[in-house]
Amino acid sequence: MKALVYHGPGEKNWEDVPDPKRQADTDAIVRVDTTTICGTDLHILKGDTPEVTGGRILGHEAVGTVEEVGSGVKTLSVDDRVLVSCISACGACRFCREGRYGQCTGGGGWILGHLIDGTQAEYVRVPFADTSTYRLPAGTSDEEILMLADILPTGYEVGVLNGHVQPGDTVAVVGTGPIGLSAITGARMFSPSHVIAIDLADARLEAAKAFGADLTFNNSHADAVAYVRGLTDGLGADVAIEAVGVPASFELCTELVRPGGHVANIGVHGKPATLHLESLWTRDVTITTGLVDTYSTPTLLRLVASHQIDATRFATHHFGLNEMLEAYDTYGRAAETGAVKVVLSR
Amino acid sequence: MKALVYHGPGEKNWEDVPDPKRQADTDAIVRVDTTTICGTDLHILKGDTPEVTGGRILGHEAVGTVEEVGSGVKTLSVDDRVLVSCISACGACRFCREGRYGQCTGGGGWILGHLIDGTQAEYVRVPFADTSTYRLPAGTSDEEILMLADILPTGYEVGVLNGHVQPGDTVAVVGTGPIGLSAITGARMFSPSHVIAIDLADARLEAAKAFGADLTFNNSHADAVAYVRGLTDGLGADVAIEAVGVPASFELCTELVRPGGHVANIGVHGKPATLHLESLWTRDVTITTGLVDTYSTPTLLRLVASHQIDATRFATHHFGLNEMLEAYDTYGRAAETGAVKVVLSR
Amino acid sequence: MKALVYHGPGEKNWEDVPDPKRQADTDAIVRVDTTTICGTDLHILKGDTPEVTGGRILGHEAVGTVEEVGSGVKTLSVDDRVLVSCISACGACRFCREGRYGQCTGGGGWILGHLIDGTQAEYVRVPFADTSTYRLPAGTSDEEILMLADILPTGYEVGVLNGHVQPGDTVAVVGTGPIGLSAITGARMFSPSHVIAIDLADARLEAAKAFGADLTFNNSHADAVAYVRGLTDGLGADVAIEAVGVPASFELCTELVRPGGHVANIGVHGKPATLHLESLWTRDVTITTGLVDTYSTPTLLRLVASHQIDATRFATHHFGLNEMLEAYDTYGRAAETGAVKVVLSR
Amino acid sequence: MKALVYHGPGEKNWEDVPDPKRQADTDAIVRVDTTTICGTDLHILKGDTPEVTGGRILGHEAVGTVEEVGSGVKTLSVDDRVLVSCISACGACRFCREGRYGQCTGGGGWILGHLIDGTQAEYVRVPFADTSTYRLPAGTSDEEILMLADILPTGYEVGVLNGHVQPGDTVAVVGTGPIGLSAITGARMFSPSHVIAIDLADARLEAAKAFGADLTFNNSHADAVAYVRGLTDGLGADVAIEAVGVPASFELCTELVRPGGHVANIGVHGKPATLHLESLWTRDVTITTGLVDTYSTPTLLRLVASHQIDATRFATHHFGLNEMLEAYDTYGRAAETGAVKVVLSR
Repeated sequence: MKALVYHGPGEKNWEDVPDPKRQADTDAIVRVDTTTICGTDLHILKGDTPEVTGGRILGHEAVGTVEEVGSGVKTLSVDDRVLVSCISACGACRFCREGRYGQCTGGGGWILGHLIDGTQAEYVRVPFADTSTYRLPAGTSDEEILMLADILPTGYEVGVLNGHVQPGDTVAVVGTGPIGLSAITGARMFSPSHVIAIDLADARLEAAKAFGADLTFNNSHADAVAYVRGLTDGLGADVAIEAVGVPASFELCTELVRPGGHVANIGVHGKPATLHLESLWTRDVTITTGLVDTYSTPTLLRLVASHQIDATRFATHHFGLNEMLEAYDTYGRAAETGAVKVVLSR
Repeated sequence: MKALVYHGPGEKNWEDVPDPKRQADTDAIVRVDTTTICGTDLHILKGDTPEVTGGRILGHEAVGTVEEVGSGVKTLSVDDRVLVSCISACGACRFCREGRYGQCTGGGGWILGHLIDGTQAEYVRVPFADTSTYRLPAGTSDEEILMLADILPTGYEVGVLNGHVQPGDTVAVVGTGPIGLSAITGARMFSPSHVIAIDLADARLEAAKAFGADLTFNNSHADAVAYVRGLTDGLGADVAIEAVGVPASFELCTELVRPGGHVANIGVHGKPATLHLESLWTRDVTITTGLVDTYSTPTLLRLVASHQIDATRFATHHFGLNEMLEAYDTYGRAAETGAVKVVLSR
Repeated sequence: MKALVYHGPGEKNWEDVPDPKRQADTDAIVRVDTTTICGTDLHILKGDTPEVTGGRILGHEAVGTVEEVGSGVKTLSVDDRVLVSCISACGACRFCREGRYGQCTGGGGWILGHLIDGTQAEYVRVPFADTSTYRLPAGTSDEEILMLADILPTGYEVGVLNGHVQPGDTVAVVGTGPIGLSAITGARMFSPSHVIAIDLADARLEAAKAFGADLTFNNSHADAVAYVRGLTDGLGADVAIEAVGVPASFELCTELVRPGGHVANIGVHGKPATLHLESLWTRDVTITTGLVDTYSTPTLLRLVASHQIDATRFATHHFGLNEMLEAYDTYGRAAETGAVKVVLSR
Repeated sequence: MKALVYHGPGEKNWEDVPDPKRQADTDAIVRVDTTTICGTDLHILKGDTPEVTGGRILGHEAVGTVEEVGSGVKTLSVDDRVLVSCISACGACRFCREGRYGQCTGGGGWILGHLIDGTQAEYVRVPFADTSTYRLPAGTSDEEILMLADILPTGYEVGVLNGHVQPGDTVAVVGTGPIGLSAITGARMFSPSHVIAIDLADARLEAAKAFGADLTFNNSHADAVAYVRGLTDGLGADVAIEAVGVPASFELCTELVRPGGHVANIGVHGKPATLHLESLWTRDVTITTGLVDTYSTPTLLRLVASHQIDATRFATHHFGLNEMLEAYDTYGRAAETGAVKVVLSR
């Protein structure tokens, strides 16, 4: 089959590789009907993720069709159409039994396109298939369900639920890439009074409005803290969501939040941040971090199926599966192309 | 001044009475600019509430203007425009300190138009004025804020929050009078997949659609349980909200709910219901009852001010304050007039 | 092997039966080292549970040793010593993924000694062995862990956690059989101010003191409601736990509870109760029902291993496995023998 | 009257000052029967708290007798015996209505011995007396209730409740001064499996055992992270409580905590800490900060009155009120004297 293979920092290719084979009885082989590219894939290509070794097929998001199942797969059948989640779950370890699949100690967690071959291919081996895939609800498209493989649960769980967004809240989202837009989308499920998108690029802020931000603020040349306090009787945001992954944006979030509020970090960080405990210690703030667990995937499937969430908005560019390299190019130049998510389909 | 005075079962009059006077230093006198009539007022007039004595001015909902404040009132000034809540709160008892103002043991709770004179008058004495009134947010109308005096917090707290409505849920609301419509409005703040309005009258079900019910079901001639199970893989509703107040509708809710779901009773009951523990004991259900506490009023003010809730939809009929008896007539024949809430203004 | 076989109402025998065989690859065969008898077994013998058919081996509680595992069992090995839980969990259905194993729709739930052969035998087939058994912690005895097969998680989850017992609370437990004593034991984990045991039998109340009730009340001849209100400034108990299973004790709980409090039903009911909504509708009560899910079993294992819970107190009488009929006799006459739990060991 | 007056950094005196007078109708004048000294008082004396001006009477903890009440005080009478809380609460602002009194925007918060004269005196003016004092429960001593003025609610709310300690947890408490010991005491209310006290001084660790730490670890010469992971299958503590107030101990807590765990900061910090987001971003941790709110004071009063908490253990040294300077000396040399709390009584 064809697949996108990582060959070390800066090196990738769409090339012929052997078809995947089942290795455990709980594996399924899934034909990839639709896949996409994640910011994390770009990080891997930069060499930021040294545990990814040369020869690895990338990708951890797909919608596909079950081709084969092992004898240990109890709830899936050949020809079932499924969402392949970015997180695999053994289903039996302590963390899986608590719904914290991202922390699975039984061999799951984020492994696809990371520790094992991934979804940017014609076929993919999916371990623990019963607990790592979800059937497609009636009346939904592959393209919208694809957004539930990673970005929507990430924004919803790590941003919105960890941040405890509640009706009437003022929510500040710092960073309006795909994850920030997912957090905005998810926050809207709780009817906040205001969702303030904060970014350095006007074009991204404009996009944020379409995803549900009623207020936007470009903090490249002005003070976002003063702006948010001005909107909130001097108190600050009820929830500040970090969706960039650099110290400055995290530290901004800790200044944006009101006493008693929540800072929810989603960003992937490579460096430590400074935590100003000398002022924060009295301010009753709650700060959370988290890898997505995908425990919210069943909820999000219901929200998409009932049109509470319009996930098609994320799919800005479309390609054939064989146009993988062009898709990488478009996604890699998102600032220029305006790509939010690229969709590759058979 | 003029006021609507109760003179025993079936007897009321819009008549001259002495102006209210402050009795405690924490009292305010508020000029009533807008008031309304509640289903509870009709119950009082039927004689269902024997603790209400002849000579009592009815009404527990108003928006008005502060005329006088006692020396113990610290946060209000003359000419402040305020929402007068149906629940008064001493602010110091155990229950008030837990935000459970409806259970106030310090002299508050539901007293207006019940144990003391109420708001269907030109002026009203408001006890514990600091903790029993709310300033009007900028850019809101008296009419929409009036809906926060009772029905919106009742539907939201006792129905939606007690029922623990969550994104993606299927919510069944039994009864679509003003309280049921408030519960539907409040439930929508949490983006349920479906809100199913259930009633015996097609006209009310039609109205329910305008308030956010995406599905309606007339249970006068068909089986609501079968209908809801058919929509939910045989499981039942995540949340069933009782907004009628008779045993049959409560018992229906306990059948509508799925294992692990919530039944939230809002209805005012005069008789016991049967609780089928012989089937419910294994079904992991949570049943809640409650008088409104109005702890959610600040949140609801934010939701109205930010246009997340359109409260003007409730105000179906308008009258002058002096047309009180006509307003009672219109509201008393709601099935015929289609009245949801009548608004009386100076 | 030998097993306790149910032969229809009133008929049971300790007799030779074929050894159990694996039927699915996720099955394990466990040698029963220790088992016990549950009140539910007595109900079955009375014919109250018609879904239990003649020829069924009873029992749903055991500690044992793994003899065989199917190819789908990933985390257990032959010779592992395990707790066999009363609840089997498929691990993949919606309810299992939410930790609500008692409601498993994938073939689990309460099946042992009910829908399939159980643990009152020399060997037992355990379905879904990965997610239905727990390894024994170091330093614990079989006998104390046996109490975690059913009664301790039942009292803790359905009574204490559903009832939301908190430090400083006044907790009333109505009924002091094994389940009531489990609820008392579990409640003590949250340091309530008072645990009031209420029962009709002085001997059981005396036993309740040893399990952590600091106050006891015999309600055969006096008014428990007046007693509890007298202790609580007239308010009532923060939490009332029903551990009998008859309408009168449930109705008592709804009167014992304070405004804003919780009624947690554990009792197995055969008849409906009356719910006095005409008084309860204003009292902000939360009523819960539930079958045990055993999601708390890992927590309870830690509590027993760290000596926070002394589970050996429950084991009042000891027998050899072959003395099954004598053990039934002793347990069936608990009022006379003072049996809380009988322990049968190889 | 006599009072302990701050005269700028390093300068204090027990001297004659005018008796306090009521300034608002919600004030009470309380005769101080028992007071104590807090670590914060030592910080003020070092000059770390520049908002405290010369001439200020220090102290924010007392048990006393009401001498006078203003007309706005509704629930207290002369001769009532009360706990004077370190936090004053206006009772009407947004934060007070949410129980977050430490963030009061209506003139309360931590003001006693800080922004207004405090309790280390023969009499003290207590603002917002209705909502800032608590009656003494029957059968309790002044000395034990005094511990509820600050340290016990601080350890319980900011450490235990913010840290979400649950039965069966492993809790690490870093720092075993009075606040760390309060956190240990509070944690025990939830029956953790283990409470590990971590400190640099063996004498303090020894004391920690008496307060409920079952394990102790001196981290001056060994690796606490390795120790805690060794106890927890390599995972780390469920909850890590910071009770020192320096960057190193906070950073240690973020390493001690398991994935999915809680870090609760209680320490008063003067400098920023480093937050290692490059490793924490995937670890699902929750970090909280907080000033005490004293919303738990009613609960703690019940826990002391019912002997769930033995607060007398904190009172290691006793003085007459006139021995204030000796008491300061003893408390200031706690490492040497072993003082946890000094109690000064009339």
